[in-house]
Amino acid sequence: MRFEAINFNEKFLKFDEQWSPKIIGQMNDYQFKLVKIQGHFTWHEHKDTDEVFIVLEGEMSIDFKDGRVNISENEMFIVPKGAEHKPYAENECKILLIEPKGVINTGDSNSELTAEEDVWI
Amino acid sequence: MRFEAINFNEKFLKFDEQWSPKIIGQMNDYQFKLVKIQGHFTWHEHKDTDEVFIVLEGEMSIDFKDGRVNISENEMFIVPKGAEHKPYAENECKILLIEPKGVINTGDSNSELTAEEDVWI
Repeated sequence: MRFEAINFNEKFLKFDEQWSPKIIGQMNDYQFKLVKIQGHFTWHEHKDTDEVFIVLEGEMSIDFKDGRVNISENEMFIVPKGAEHKPYAENECKILLIEPKGVINTGDSNSELTAEEDVWI
Repeated sequence: MRFEAINFNEKFLKFDEQWSPKIIGQMNDYQFKLVKIQGHFTWHEHKDTDEVFIVLEGEMSIDFKDGRVNISENEMFIVPKGAEHKPYAENECKILLIEPKGVINTGDSNSELTAEEDVWI
């Protein structure tokens, strides 16, 4: 075991790409991923799993087919499995995602926004 | 679905007890718990699961039999399953715990610090 905490700010310095989740840790079969987001993502869903968003810096929103949630720094939101959703951030927003290993960022919707999987920083 | 983010600061206003995890959300079979800690906890282990600590305010440390990790605000640490550990905080520290539903805070070590399970706020 390495007796060293994972520092979010240090990890964010290691990449610039937006919408490209980077793995920073794994608990059992669940991964913790840092992401920088800005603008509109694509509509998608994760059929088999919930997904957690924790906003570390900035603010974002998630559109659903029947509503919208705003998430600010020090807030989290759990997207239920099977719920079509579309994340959005006006200005760059830094978030921590938690979801099972193997989840694709665009879910069932292959697009140019589909990120490479399993990239650790 | 409630289109409302979970705000950590608002949730922390709802309780004062230390070492008493309060559940604020569940993703699949995993629960997100807020805890206020201060002083020494008890040595314990979780035989079947890793456990994640995210420090939201303050600083804490975790002693292991062969080392110690310090965790500050905006940092996280993953305690591997089966690793005996003892959390500590000199001043009150506010943390987010992530672990499977049903995990007991004192693991295999029943003590006066064993908290009531499954308390939602």
